[in-house]
Amino acid sequence: MTRMTTRPENVHQERLLRLLRDEGPRSRAELGDVVHLSRSKLAVEIDRLVELGLVEPAGLAASRGGRRSSIVRLAARLRVVAIDIGATSIDVAVTNGELEILGHVAMACNVREGPDVVLERALDLLGKLRGEGLADEIHGVGIGVPGPVSFREGMPVVPPIMPGWDRYPVREAVSQRLGCPVLVDNDVNIMALGELHAGLARSVEDFLLLKIGTGVGCGIVVDGKVYRGMSGSAGDIGHIQVDEDGPTCVCGNVGCLEATFSGAALARDAVTEARAGRSPFLADRLEEAGELTALDVAAAVAAGDPTALRLVREGGRRVGNVLAGLISFFNPGLVVIAGGVAGLGHILLAEIRSVVYRRSPPLATGNLPIVLSELKNTAGVIGATRLISDHIFAAT
Amino acid sequence: MTRMTTRPENVHQERLLRLLRDEGPRSRAELGDVVHLSRSKLAVEIDRLVELGLVEPAGLAASRGGRRSSIVRLAARLRVVAIDIGATSIDVAVTNGELEILGHVAMACNVREGPDVVLERALDLLGKLRGEGLADEIHGVGIGVPGPVSFREGMPVVPPIMPGWDRYPVREAVSQRLGCPVLVDNDVNIMALGELHAGLARSVEDFLLLKIGTGVGCGIVVDGKVYRGMSGSAGDIGHIQVDEDGPTCVCGNVGCLEATFSGAALARDAVTEARAGRSPFLADRLEEAGELTALDVAAAVAAGDPTALRLVREGGRRVGNVLAGLISFFNPGLVVIAGGVAGLGHILLAEIRSVVYRRSPPLATGNLPIVLSELKNTAGVIGATRLISDHIFAAT
Repeated sequence: MTRMTTRPENVHQERLLRLLRDEGPRSRAELGDVVHLSRSKLAVEIDRLVELGLVEPAGLAASRGGRRSSIVRLAARLRVVAIDIGATSIDVAVTNGELEILGHVAMACNVREGPDVVLERALDLLGKLRGEGLADEIHGVGIGVPGPVSFREGMPVVPPIMPGWDRYPVREAVSQRLGCPVLVDNDVNIMALGELHAGLARSVEDFLLLKIGTGVGCGIVVDGKVYRGMSGSAGDIGHIQVDEDGPTCVCGNVGCLEATFSGAALARDAVTEARAGRSPFLADRLEEAGELTALDVAAAVAAGDPTALRLVREGGRRVGNVLAGLISFFNPGLVVIAGGVAGLGHILLAEIRSVVYRRSPPLATGNLPIVLSELKNTAGVIGATRLISDHIFAAT
Repeated sequence: MTRMTTRPENVHQERLLRLLRDEGPRSRAELGDVVHLSRSKLAVEIDRLVELGLVEPAGLAASRGGRRSSIVRLAARLRVVAIDIGATSIDVAVTNGELEILGHVAMACNVREGPDVVLERALDLLGKLRGEGLADEIHGVGIGVPGPVSFREGMPVVPPIMPGWDRYPVREAVSQRLGCPVLVDNDVNIMALGELHAGLARSVEDFLLLKIGTGVGCGIVVDGKVYRGMSGSAGDIGHIQVDEDGPTCVCGNVGCLEATFSGAALARDAVTEARAGRSPFLADRLEEAGELTALDVAAAVAAGDPTALRLVREGGRRVGNVLAGLISFFNPGLVVIAGGVAGLGHILLAEIRSVVYRRSPPLATGNLPIVLSELKNTAGVIGATRLISDHIFAAT
């Protein structure tokens, strides 16, 4: 495997690389309009990026009245890899320098099998993509994991659903195997970066990504960068108390948001309702499958089942109350809702919105869109490549 | 009045000015150790700052083995002004370039009298300090007001307790009168900057300043800078719902934090308890003064009054619950508690800590100090001078 260590040498080169990544091929004249360098200085920096193999010529632009300007683009050989490890799945994707997905494979895999097994499977998946000729050289790898991460050290820290991963040196292990830079972050931060790069948050500096999946978490973006907090646990909102008399949570406290409304809590409540005879629809499904998931609740809602509708509405109200508080505190420019339970769609969204717009200060909600993610299952992998791309395109 | 428009010309000069402001006089050799400029380049920048009148020589340093290095300091003539407008008071202070207070005057003044009256009184107070020769030239003015501010526009926006101030151009008005740069922010952000500059948050990049006064608000510092959010309302946590069956708030919702525990709420509850005969101590005070304040509750607590103790403990629990959520979300490196009600001291602090350490994730609270401010009534004025100083010491 080839080690690629080329990095931009100064902030001008960094700026040019990010522009070409986010906006695509550009003529030298267009780049000059944006970076405010003299024509000769710009030429020096672009020529240097070509020498470094990070940028390449891509023909001539249409004339703007004089000599035609030549177009440059990120080198076509650049490859960035995403490894998105979920609670029960692994996604691996390869992108070009512009972070466009060239190949994406996924498999079921329980993160509880531990780092040796799970990382080996991830590398196998990557090997498959490389076997198809998709990634001869790898410029960098971004990894997401479903738990708290010490970003600085590149390792999970006391992750509740990842036995065996505590302080396992994920970044070092993968970096040594692949011979390239690697960064590790938690899955929610990765999704937030995906929304920032390719989702509804593209032009928003300060926003929140609320993920409601098996658990509940929040990605925080400040000034276009993920905010991780003092010890990397920022956004860990699943254990905010929403009900003093609520159900006991796995964390030992009572009435945590996650224990009250999440994929897992919804499935639990659906089983209770089915067994109590309050929903023939859910009871039928339970008998067929032996268990219920958030998807069954979504189906019940679609079929007009009033009990399922009540569960989603009550959940939306809980989430909305927490979100209203966070919006008062953080005054974001956008809230994106994602994760499996977000698949419940507009009924959930309507309930969340109604609570937030009633409870948060008008100054904070006046221009605040609350939307469902449109990225579906690609937010994680795009975000992981964005994470490592920001790193390798940073001036050393 | 003299207009001083001198600003640093580049980031090196900016860095040097901030170092001299925050660390005091330094030898050229010491400055060279910190800013990583070549000896000759450093000399050029310092000489230029001397020419601009921002820096001046201050003798020779002790020898470090060779020729003695000359000491420089911020120009002694630099003057920065703070105007801290509270709900019922105005504080005006003049500092030197190092933001050390040279003069500080205050008067009672109700902000409801409107901007014309209040700003005139503030300028009168400043005139008094100038009459003592404390500020011949003014380099800049930082202003704090008790309500939401559009920082970009330098004006209050729909401030609930400031009738007549909505969109009043405070920054422009004062800047025109004094002929120098002016910035306006809300009082809680100003206090957070005070803690960052001179308080317990001096070396902390990410922290929260929780102010519990007549109302409740939060200052958020990210990466050493005040985070203001999309529309400047970040930290406006007084209306987070803490009790679905709580008292009705002035904002129209029920059970807001501020309606449940704040200086105003505490005074209201103390009167209720006194009238219901549940606290002879408070009843005596009420009869004497005709009203009760948070100070009376503090006195009752000090005298061992169990009803007052209960009020403070219940309030601490409410605040602690909200703070626990914010800590889960924001993962700060420090929480500083300030404001009038913080004067209730360690009983309140103990209750808040006990809730937070029980309810927030261990990763977020492991190394998290929660402390009472030690700045007392100077946080606001120091923060206001820091605000404008950061601006005038920024390279243009």
